[in-house]
Amino acid sequence: MLSEFDLIKRYFTRERAGRASTVLGVGDDCALLAPTPGMQLAVSTDMLVEDRHFFAGADPRKLGHKCLAVNLSDLAAMGARPLAFTLALALPQADADWLAGFSEGLFALADEYGCELIGGDTTRGPLNICITVFGEIEPGHALRRDAARDGDDIWISGTLGDARLALAGYRNEAWLDAASHEQAGARMHTPTPRVALGRLLAEQKLARAALDISDGLIGDLSHILAASRVGATLDVDALPAGLALQREDQALRRRFTLAGGDDYELCFTAAPAQRAAIEDAGRASATPVTRVGRIEAAPGLRLVDAHGVPLALSLRGWDHFQQ
Amino acid sequence: MLSEFDLIKRYFTRERAGRASTVLGVGDDCALLAPTPGMQLAVSTDMLVEDRHFFAGADPRKLGHKCLAVNLSDLAAMGARPLAFTLALALPQADADWLAGFSEGLFALADEYGCELIGGDTTRGPLNICITVFGEIEPGHALRRDAARDGDDIWISGTLGDARLALAGYRNEAWLDAASHEQAGARMHTPTPRVALGRLLAEQKLARAALDISDGLIGDLSHILAASRVGATLDVDALPAGLALQREDQALRRRFTLAGGDDYELCFTAAPAQRAAIEDAGRASATPVTRVGRIEAAPGLRLVDAHGVPLALSLRGWDHFQQ
Repeated sequence: MLSEFDLIKRYFTRERAGRASTVLGVGDDCALLAPTPGMQLAVSTDMLVEDRHFFAGADPRKLGHKCLAVNLSDLAAMGARPLAFTLALALPQADADWLAGFSEGLFALADEYGCELIGGDTTRGPLNICITVFGEIEPGHALRRDAARDGDDIWISGTLGDARLALAGYRNEAWLDAASHEQAGARMHTPTPRVALGRLLAEQKLARAALDISDGLIGDLSHILAASRVGATLDVDALPAGLALQREDQALRRRFTLAGGDDYELCFTAAPAQRAAIEDAGRASATPVTRVGRIEAAPGLRLVDAHGVPLALSLRGWDHFQQ
Repeated sequence: MLSEFDLIKRYFTRERAGRASTVLGVGDDCALLAPTPGMQLAVSTDMLVEDRHFFAGADPRKLGHKCLAVNLSDLAAMGARPLAFTLALALPQADADWLAGFSEGLFALADEYGCELIGGDTTRGPLNICITVFGEIEPGHALRRDAARDGDDIWISGTLGDARLALAGYRNEAWLDAASHEQAGARMHTPTPRVALGRLLAEQKLARAALDISDGLIGDLSHILAASRVGATLDVDALPAGLALQREDQALRRRFTLAGGDDYELCFTAAPAQRAAIEDAGRASATPVTRVGRIEAAPGLRLVDAHGVPLALSLRGWDHFQQ
């Protein structure tokens, strides 16, 4: 069996990419980062656990992608530019095939976003993947949760609900044909972090508040409302459903766009004066953007249909300790 | 049962300490750090798993201390000043008593070192604690593993082997009286990160190479030798044994000082011209320092006794995948 150090060396040590921001990478007590002078450092951490965030036996290549993607999505939601990440891994055994696939998926996405692995830890234990990601952002430009204002538009990037639909398929809660299974599965297993859009929104100060939708739109939007001390009205029929979810009935579309989970799309608020610039940013980043509601002074979240008629839907966000 | 968000709020959100380095803490997609201009950022991550790094049912207060201590020890080994950390936690259930104890031990140590919790993640899963710690250091001052030179002294902070002796006691490999049990147990459960000494060694450029001893001296020193392409001779009888281990016989003393594990002391190399300054740094940081050997050009690690007679001891470092 490979030793721990051999494992790390073989799969996670690469030739230095030589990024100016990274002074010292994997293999010492600490990595050393030199952020661009004057920039702030954005930091986020996510832990993924088998049977909770992914199925036992999940394709390691896709898993490598997803673990980093959900972290990059947090940087995107802040408007930060990815710099680097650390990886801590608990593995039940040292499985070379698994490590080869996982590291391949991980590094393919890391390279796409210029995000360098700078350190980590490997230990034996129940499968657990913990990534901490670092980005940088201009002071005062971060898209925080507490910055929404009365009168802001509410926007969504991409589409919602397909990841949740894929889960429904796996759980036999819904029957999916081959095309839907593939489309929805891709959204569940290999989400696209909206880094380019987030950067434009922050760099050009187009958006006020933002977050990434990981636990379902309603639950996550509620965090913005609470932090910003505002309310909102959402046009439920304006919510952009995923390609596969579009073929399902209205009830399922509403349920999975509002309270799906694993979407990794951005929900952001912006002044109405920014509408054209936000559409431009969507085109420039090849990311669809859709206006779905309005921030209001009155507390609470109101759901309406396309005709403005109030809907009495009871849906809750994903909560790891209440399922 | 508490929801995930309630848990995080209750135990891990505190009034902002208002450190200049932390712009935004727990509760957004990312935390924001503003390192002191001109300083480099040191980053390290450690994952602790039940039954591997600590016993099931371990005192949560001590566990909170230890999880952060082992990360601060990595900063100490680099010579960095602690700034902040993130915490990712997988818990089998939301146990308020456990969380209260864990967070108390964690924050007591964090406050001692001015290290602020800036973000995290909580999920249900087999108990797993992953901390990523951030420190800052002057460019060019980091104590790296690849900087040892022929002729350097080899130094050890504090004492070695008591944590391993405590483990031997728990495993019934050794019989410990009450005093030894307590002394050795304290070293195992609540190690002291050598942050103050590390800072002095780096700030004043007293040491060349350094690391923290977590997997046993021989295994860890070998990393310095490999990275620096040098060899060394260690005076085994000069190794400072822990208070409890001093009462054991020579064979056990040698074994546990050379290849114990969980020591979290610094092993560093320095030019002989720095001896007096290093003794001063030890006094200034209230940390014993002991000279235990010499870096040499000839590759390999040679063990000798107090009379310089070669010892043929076969001991290996702790390797998580080979036990």
